[in-house]
Amino acid sequence: MSTTRFLTGITPSGAPHLGNYAGMMRPAIEATRTPAVENFYFLADYHALIKCQDPARVHRSTLEIAASWLAAGLDPERVTFYRQSDIPEIPELHWLLSCVTGKGLLNRAHAYKAAQDKNQEVGREQDEGVSAGLFMYPVLMGADILLFNAHKVPVGRDQIQHIEMARDMAASFNHLYGDHFVLPEAAVDDQVATLPGLDGRKMSKSYDNTIALFTPREQLRKLIGGILTDSRKPGEPKETEGSALFQIYQAFASEDETAALRRAYADGIAWGDAKQMLFDRIDREIAPLRERYDDLLAHPEHVEHILQAGAQRARKIATPFMQELRAAVGLRSLAQSAGSGKPAAKATKAAVPSFKQYREADGKFYFKLVAADGHLLLQSKGFDVPKDAGQAIARLQQQGLDACLDLLEPLAQEAHAAAAAALQALATA
Amino acid sequence: MSTTRFLTGITPSGAPHLGNYAGMMRPAIEATRTPAVENFYFLADYHALIKCQDPARVHRSTLEIAASWLAAGLDPERVTFYRQSDIPEIPELHWLLSCVTGKGLLNRAHAYKAAQDKNQEVGREQDEGVSAGLFMYPVLMGADILLFNAHKVPVGRDQIQHIEMARDMAASFNHLYGDHFVLPEAAVDDQVATLPGLDGRKMSKSYDNTIALFTPREQLRKLIGGILTDSRKPGEPKETEGSALFQIYQAFASEDETAALRRAYADGIAWGDAKQMLFDRIDREIAPLRERYDDLLAHPEHVEHILQAGAQRARKIATPFMQELRAAVGLRSLAQSAGSGKPAAKATKAAVPSFKQYREADGKFYFKLVAADGHLLLQSKGFDVPKDAGQAIARLQQQGLDACLDLLEPLAQEAHAAAAAALQALATA
Repeated sequence: MSTTRFLTGITPSGAPHLGNYAGMMRPAIEATRTPAVENFYFLADYHALIKCQDPARVHRSTLEIAASWLAAGLDPERVTFYRQSDIPEIPELHWLLSCVTGKGLLNRAHAYKAAQDKNQEVGREQDEGVSAGLFMYPVLMGADILLFNAHKVPVGRDQIQHIEMARDMAASFNHLYGDHFVLPEAAVDDQVATLPGLDGRKMSKSYDNTIALFTPREQLRKLIGGILTDSRKPGEPKETEGSALFQIYQAFASEDETAALRRAYADGIAWGDAKQMLFDRIDREIAPLRERYDDLLAHPEHVEHILQAGAQRARKIATPFMQELRAAVGLRSLAQSAGSGKPAAKATKAAVPSFKQYREADGKFYFKLVAADGHLLLQSKGFDVPKDAGQAIARLQQQGLDACLDLLEPLAQEAHAAAAAALQALATA
Repeated sequence: MSTTRFLTGITPSGAPHLGNYAGMMRPAIEATRTPAVENFYFLADYHALIKCQDPARVHRSTLEIAASWLAAGLDPERVTFYRQSDIPEIPELHWLLSCVTGKGLLNRAHAYKAAQDKNQEVGREQDEGVSAGLFMYPVLMGADILLFNAHKVPVGRDQIQHIEMARDMAASFNHLYGDHFVLPEAAVDDQVATLPGLDGRKMSKSYDNTIALFTPREQLRKLIGGILTDSRKPGEPKETEGSALFQIYQAFASEDETAALRRAYADGIAWGDAKQMLFDRIDREIAPLRERYDDLLAHPEHVEHILQAGAQRARKIATPFMQELRAAVGLRSLAQSAGSGKPAAKATKAAVPSFKQYREADGKFYFKLVAADGHLLLQSKGFDVPKDAGQAIARLQQQGLDACLDLLEPLAQEAHAAAAAALQALATA
């Protein structure tokens, strides 16, 4: 694979604020436009269940966060954008990985240890209030990543350990069952810009000093009016250093605009006028996004439709890959011969034939089964949509050659035997 | 529901022996013929992955065990007979249950503690060699049981704890999300007959003294010839007490036949002749089963077909039920308005809202009033101790909504009317 695959999980936990937008969402969306990079973004709603046991809130947050990212410019044509709970292969892989993950590894996970430490501080039993879900969270995260063989996972520093754990799981599985998983790497950006909040501290929900990204325009004006400034009068020169207002402006403005505000500070701009400039600048960027957001919230069925399409795209990868993983651990159709079930080591893997899907000039979707040496074993008929071709492959793998002759171009007798043998080899590889 | 639903898991771990057959399989299959009882039997191949990392063996064992039960008379028309790994709802429910199961509960599971003790004995770290899968095994078992709302789970005494854990998980989930699960009960049969093995000890793989149930006829004859007897000569009366041969015979023979062998013992039958009688008696019962077994092994696609049909039947229950559970925790289509997410619950519940008490990340205690369909009606402020939250609920119920606005988060006007109506409904329910 020549493209690098990035995977990002978004926990649906309330509407984003300006700091989230400028520090994380906007650069992330920018990065999805890089060529030769494939991006997977998913709403981590299974993860959300660990902390949030209010169903209405889980549901609402999922909508708000999905709508926020779409409104902010995430392009579902360019990015595979899906909801975790629409991919049944994720909890299944979670189980397979559980069986190759040492419990000792999970004992050392930061999030779990933090919960233990907190209990200890207040004199409670160390696992009080800790759910099995919290404890197993790194394995679910491993499944999220490994199911798509992501190369890079953009995370904060506090999440590096989880990516290392996912690597460990991948390595254990590969060791036991043959080479199936890419070993993922954390992509840590230490340059993440933070924005100051209304009170000058870092903008954060826990300080209650945020400006919601899609707050209505008049509310935005009011909130900006409340940003903490010093008491210098109009006409008095003002410091840009340490000015929350200036820093927020800078995060939205061009270099020229920033330079202009710097001069205005030196020239003694009144705080009221500076706030007006800030409001205008932010609103200029946000207004079209807010309109899209409001529209999406008013039409949640559109968001649902986009997520369904994303899930379909994701499962085009996940479903056949999960078949491969199931076969690797021994969960195979009994109709396949049992004897040849040795795990595929690297060397033997090379000899395995493979399916290729492609589109022809006639606009239809085809697949073929190609031997390791490149010669054609099976040629499908044309299908109108790629999904049908994918399902035909799945049917062929489940039901075998003879049950699926209707999907294929006619086969000569010798070719039939070779193709049947290749399918079997593939199934037991 | 008027019928009682039984659920039995079979771990695919090697071919059964005569002791398994007479002590467990035969009576279990007999019991499936009881009217007003619904039976679910599944091959626990996800569980098998905890212990067995040889894919060919997992695959082969699944075939052998499925074929053994079918050959022994399990009727897939009467019993829902399926393979665990064909039910994607099981790993999904496993995750949902993980989020409502305290880790502390799992710390006390016997199987896990046994592994810890063993490590301690030999001076190893307590979790060495313990996989996350082994640790989480009770939650997967909970998912197996609760997904089908089984009333009774036939288990050995050593498994009672796991059924109690499944009850706990069901109760936690019901408490948080409304009444969805039946609380299952262990059905322990202390009368399980054991058979002596070739050496007179209990027939068991660990003593290497077994007679495989479907061993070829001549092999069966040879093995029976090797059963330990005393050295009394032909013509000398023999003791039935303590005679392995006699006990095995008894497990297969009618009362009359048993009485006849007892007389023959007293009359001094030669051991060779007694062994011939035993062989004839067992073979009379097993021969037709063995023929069926050999036929199934030669046609694994038939077994696969039966399991697929069973999975289809099982999923007719599992798929819609999982939809209900997903909706209950908040995993719903965004196209549904937040209020209408819940599929029809039991008729009586549908009308009645309920109070939920819970603790938030801020350490405070809250309650909310939730409609039967899951949408939020009232949200309390935070209380420092749970007792205050409880008293606030009582005050609300006694004094009504308007007298208690100080306890609650502000309500929109329409929400106010709905909440007042719900409180009234609750009072008169």
